[in-house]
Amino acid sequence: MKKEGFSESELAAMSPKDFRSLVRRGEWTDKTLPACRGYAQANLAIVPKDYAFEFLVFCHRNPRPFPVVDVTEPGDPHPKLVAPEADLRTDLPKYRVFQDGALIDEPTDISNYWREDLVAFVMPAGRSFDWSLRAANIQYRVTGWYVSSIQCVPAGRFHGPMAVTHRLFKTSYDAVRAVQITSRHLSMHGPPIHIGDPAIIGISAPAPQEPGEISMCWGCGVAKPVALESKVPFMITHCPSYLFVTDRLSEELAVL
Amino acid sequence: MKKEGFSESELAAMSPKDFRSLVRRGEWTDKTLPACRGYAQANLAIVPKDYAFEFLVFCHRNPRPFPVVDVTEPGDPHPKLVAPEADLRTDLPKYRVFQDGALIDEPTDISNYWREDLVAFVMPAGRSFDWSLRAANIQYRVTGWYVSSIQCVPAGRFHGPMAVTHRLFKTSYDAVRAVQITSRHLSMHGPPIHIGDPAIIGISAPAPQEPGEISMCWGCGVAKPVALESKVPFMITHCPSYLFVTDRLSEELAVL
Repeated sequence: MKKEGFSESELAAMSPKDFRSLVRRGEWTDKTLPACRGYAQANLAIVPKDYAFEFLVFCHRNPRPFPVVDVTEPGDPHPKLVAPEADLRTDLPKYRVFQDGALIDEPTDISNYWREDLVAFVMPAGRSFDWSLRAANIQYRVTGWYVSSIQCVPAGRFHGPMAVTHRLFKTSYDAVRAVQITSRHLSMHGPPIHIGDPAIIGISAPAPQEPGEISMCWGCGVAKPVALESKVPFMITHCPSYLFVTDRLSEELAVL
Repeated sequence: MKKEGFSESELAAMSPKDFRSLVRRGEWTDKTLPACRGYAQANLAIVPKDYAFEFLVFCHRNPRPFPVVDVTEPGDPHPKLVAPEADLRTDLPKYRVFQDGALIDEPTDISNYWREDLVAFVMPAGRSFDWSLRAANIQYRVTGWYVSSIQCVPAGRFHGPMAVTHRLFKTSYDAVRAVQITSRHLSMHGPPIHIGDPAIIGISAPAPQEPGEISMCWGCGVAKPVALESKVPFMITHCPSYLFVTDRLSEELAVL
């Protein structure tokens, strides 16, 4: 099955630079999941400089959902550490713009929203460790992401519930291996934050579970619940599943 | 041999709370190395809020020397995450005060210097992983700390050379185990940043090396070179080897 003219293997084999060019030119408008096998894909959050310290402390206190790998200089849309040639204003297929705690726009380009006082935070997503789980032949499925009842540790004006991704594993062996493998990927959510019934962390209707499957949840970098609850005057994030493809391999970012 | 009335085993067995009380009352004025076996001891850096975002980005870009585990609220001297009952103004035996890039004081208490706009950063020291190396019976000696020729990645107004600690290991086995063990301790400098001749990173006169010993350097949280070169108007740090004893065991902070 082709998407926007590309086969799955063409997308997986594409370099991050080529894929970002496609996105920049408006020739890839879909989710980024199949693109650039092995490369870390990242969530994005952008706040005004006046909020940047508090947001970075917030991320620091909540490293499972918000594992920052790059902080841009104010006004600079280029993430120098993870993809210096990229432009964070144009290289994601879809964004979300929040104003005073409300979602006001879902543009495909944020050049018109860009300001000289904006600071961007690049945070690799669980998508990135999925490459490692697949490479190790772990049997599982991702059911989606949910807003949990776990409250993030607040920092300054930032607070709100933690989003999580939910995965179901075929066997205990697969689940144990997944804990081990994701523990190596601390900069992409690290190990799970919950094992067992997702209802315990407030997720009442995840995908139906098959007998014997093991349920685990990881922190998720979707910042919508935080943007809404914190009511920050201005914040931009990626749109869930429309991620930023970095130049760094997931294995480059692994801690062991 | 007793120090300030305490035997080595009494000091090692002391709780962090009791040890900090001694320090606070001025009854322990020496280096903290022998105190509270197993507990993470931390470096400290304090800057005005106007500099706090740039300093946190600086630490984030240089996690080997500056692995932050706690950032206080402006004006609040209590590190809520690692030792909520502690007072960072009084609970270290010796501090250093920098003004406009010059060391102006080495007080034993910084209450007189405290201001409502100060933000403190607590960063576990290599001292903390030494407990784990000793517990694994690794044979080595710490020769001291040095200013290397490696430049930290700058952030805003912060820049300067990286300080390192230098250790000599008896055998390749000990050295390999030390890489493995310190890799687990990412929040206390993590793995070494240099293996082999320290002259390569600008350290010309470390302690003499015995035949067969393996030389390795770790990032070090002594911020003096950064305070001097960055010429920040005001900054307080711990005095090297006079550390802050946290309530967290080194093993609690380990990533694996």
